[in-house]
Amino acid sequence: MIDLVGQRARTASHEIRQSTGETRKQALLRMAESIAGTGSALLEANASDLDQAESEGISGALVDRLRLTEARVAGMAAGLRSVASLPDPVGRETGGWALYNGVRLHRVRVPLGVVAVIYEARPNVTADAAGLCIGSGNAVILRGSSYALRSNQAITHVLREALTGVGLPADGVQLLEDTTREAARALMQATQWVDLLVPRGGPGLIEAVRADATVPTVIDGAGNCHVYVDAGADLDKALAIVVNAKVQRPGVCNAAETLLVHEAVADRFVVEAAKALIAEGVELRGDQRSKDLVPDMVPATDSDWATEFLDLVLAVRVVPDLETAIEHVRHYGTGHTEAIVTEDRAAADRFVAAVDTAVVAVNVSTRFTDGEEFGFGAEIGNSTQKLHVRGPMGLESLTSERYVLYGDGQVR
Amino acid sequence: MIDLVGQRARTASHEIRQSTGETRKQALLRMAESIAGTGSALLEANASDLDQAESEGISGALVDRLRLTEARVAGMAAGLRSVASLPDPVGRETGGWALYNGVRLHRVRVPLGVVAVIYEARPNVTADAAGLCIGSGNAVILRGSSYALRSNQAITHVLREALTGVGLPADGVQLLEDTTREAARALMQATQWVDLLVPRGGPGLIEAVRADATVPTVIDGAGNCHVYVDAGADLDKALAIVVNAKVQRPGVCNAAETLLVHEAVADRFVVEAAKALIAEGVELRGDQRSKDLVPDMVPATDSDWATEFLDLVLAVRVVPDLETAIEHVRHYGTGHTEAIVTEDRAAADRFVAAVDTAVVAVNVSTRFTDGEEFGFGAEIGNSTQKLHVRGPMGLESLTSERYVLYGDGQVR
Repeated sequence: MIDLVGQRARTASHEIRQSTGETRKQALLRMAESIAGTGSALLEANASDLDQAESEGISGALVDRLRLTEARVAGMAAGLRSVASLPDPVGRETGGWALYNGVRLHRVRVPLGVVAVIYEARPNVTADAAGLCIGSGNAVILRGSSYALRSNQAITHVLREALTGVGLPADGVQLLEDTTREAARALMQATQWVDLLVPRGGPGLIEAVRADATVPTVIDGAGNCHVYVDAGADLDKALAIVVNAKVQRPGVCNAAETLLVHEAVADRFVVEAAKALIAEGVELRGDQRSKDLVPDMVPATDSDWATEFLDLVLAVRVVPDLETAIEHVRHYGTGHTEAIVTEDRAAADRFVAAVDTAVVAVNVSTRFTDGEEFGFGAEIGNSTQKLHVRGPMGLESLTSERYVLYGDGQVR
Repeated sequence: MIDLVGQRARTASHEIRQSTGETRKQALLRMAESIAGTGSALLEANASDLDQAESEGISGALVDRLRLTEARVAGMAAGLRSVASLPDPVGRETGGWALYNGVRLHRVRVPLGVVAVIYEARPNVTADAAGLCIGSGNAVILRGSSYALRSNQAITHVLREALTGVGLPADGVQLLEDTTREAARALMQATQWVDLLVPRGGPGLIEAVRADATVPTVIDGAGNCHVYVDAGADLDKALAIVVNAKVQRPGVCNAAETLLVHEAVADRFVVEAAKALIAEGVELRGDQRSKDLVPDMVPATDSDWATEFLDLVLAVRVVPDLETAIEHVRHYGTGHTEAIVTEDRAAADRFVAAVDTAVVAVNVSTRFTDGEEFGFGAEIGNSTQKLHVRGPMGLESLTSERYVLYGDGQVR
């Protein structure tokens, strides 16, 4: 089964790789138009998925992610149009030089080939992922959740029609309709066919991919993000950043999970921040020093520092100095996003240099680590590994560079 | 055990990452000086390894790779000096722009962190790999062969002293002295400590890494490289290229394994090439059409097309057209290097576009796919995967890009 799908994807990838950027742009625009135009059919398919999920007693949060609405359908179309408007990374020359013997070397950005995406019951990911993969000249194999099967089939049908409409092979977008664990595992091990696997899901999926995948992967891992408020911070900026990073959308990976405060500003800042955060419904879990300042806090345990709450919960620690903050971040951070608030340039430089994370934010909310915010149009994931790409993954992250040599008969 | 080594490497990596390029350059020069200066001690340690290998009845080829000579010691020192002379990739800004809200974004090249290298009984890899990792601001964990243990210990000792000599932590270079399979497996699964694993070895090692590794890897895979001689080829250039690609060093991954010849030039070229190749001691395995032209050829079997001979053996096939050559390369190629010989620009363009391989060579021998030939100074491997980097891996391939955001209190 996976060999059949893989072979089709590989064959399609050869055609798509050689298509022009204009053709791929037209494909994306046609996808957007078709998604928007067949919205009612998509909503019907989605209603069947929702009925079944509810009859199986599935929880509210999953059903909410699974649900398509007119606004979400419009969002999928808008996402595809947005990707269509981005510069084409394919074919861009990223370097070129002559070897000692006159051979001319060109380094050129090319598509990866076949990208596989394994994701949960969010049908909008079907369109987002397909759009980014086609936009970057790749074929994609989508493996969604069984709960979203009818929705994904309906969306994929539309996307495939759009491909053939511009003369590209329909198999550029394939849905793996076998939603068993065995099929997912076969996809994770299809080294002959899959050039990149992006898992989009919770810790269970990431662990399964780490354990079972033999194809190259980019891990879209946890975001245990910190905001460190330095002795040199502008405390008004710090307050705005901390509240935004925690409460604006607590369920996402770029939300802050721990607040670190330099003791020089702790007396004032911990009290002010606690007041603002508690007013927003945040539960605070503090170390002893923080609890002394704000007795309402729950005592923080060791595991709190390591937890991505993804909820209105924030761990709070007062640190004696910048170096202790850096040590804390190094120990508990997950390589996603770390923020420092300070007007002290030397402190900012030290933090930026010492903290090895995909994104370091100076006087900015952690919430900006996002493909759209960065100007990538959309993102296929957010890498917390260091290989290939770190942080938000846009079109360029679905390409890599190869070499073309031109000579006149040179030999060694 | 691996946790102890990993923790030390991680701690060392924090210091090395923040060192200046000048400090790392001095470290490499000092390493080179010490390797050259303690050559006799290295040769003594190597002699013990050789004695043991021979007493265990190890084969000549392995013993040859294991053997250090004065020339090889000088080569290790020269390699380190060469890496020291290269531009420092660390800290280079590869992009920068302002977000819609005034946040300034900088994309900066940074070291990966901790690199692990698993390799066979070639002690010179110890110095090469360490030099590239330190040069690119990383810490390295080296896991060589048990046959080379004493040699590797002696080399690593010298390298570690050189690090402390310039104020860098000795644990930037660590040798995993436990050479059991279990230790290798633990290294392959040390996701907390290892940011990149590069396996350098034969198919057995690659399979083990594919099966067992949970850390990010770059696969240095097989090179089933083709030379396609087009209808529009300059046959003198073609002859020089084919002979060079096959015989100059047949045991390496960028040597040619199959010759494809367009039928329009087959009558003349296959006969001429066969004569030259047979004179060099090459065994030819041909399809029926080639055998008709050169009856001395062994009939090629299906498995010959798929085989990386790494020896003075070449498969030969006459193809009716360019497209058949492309199909052949797509089917049997391993993504390493593919060459076309032609004066016909349209044919060259078609081949370059259609063949998805790390390196495409037009009128050039396949043997140029090499870090030194490309001007990278040295290489830690040659990637046949598409993720992260393709082709020869130099200093830059041991880095990736992260983002630094500077703002003035911006929130979402």
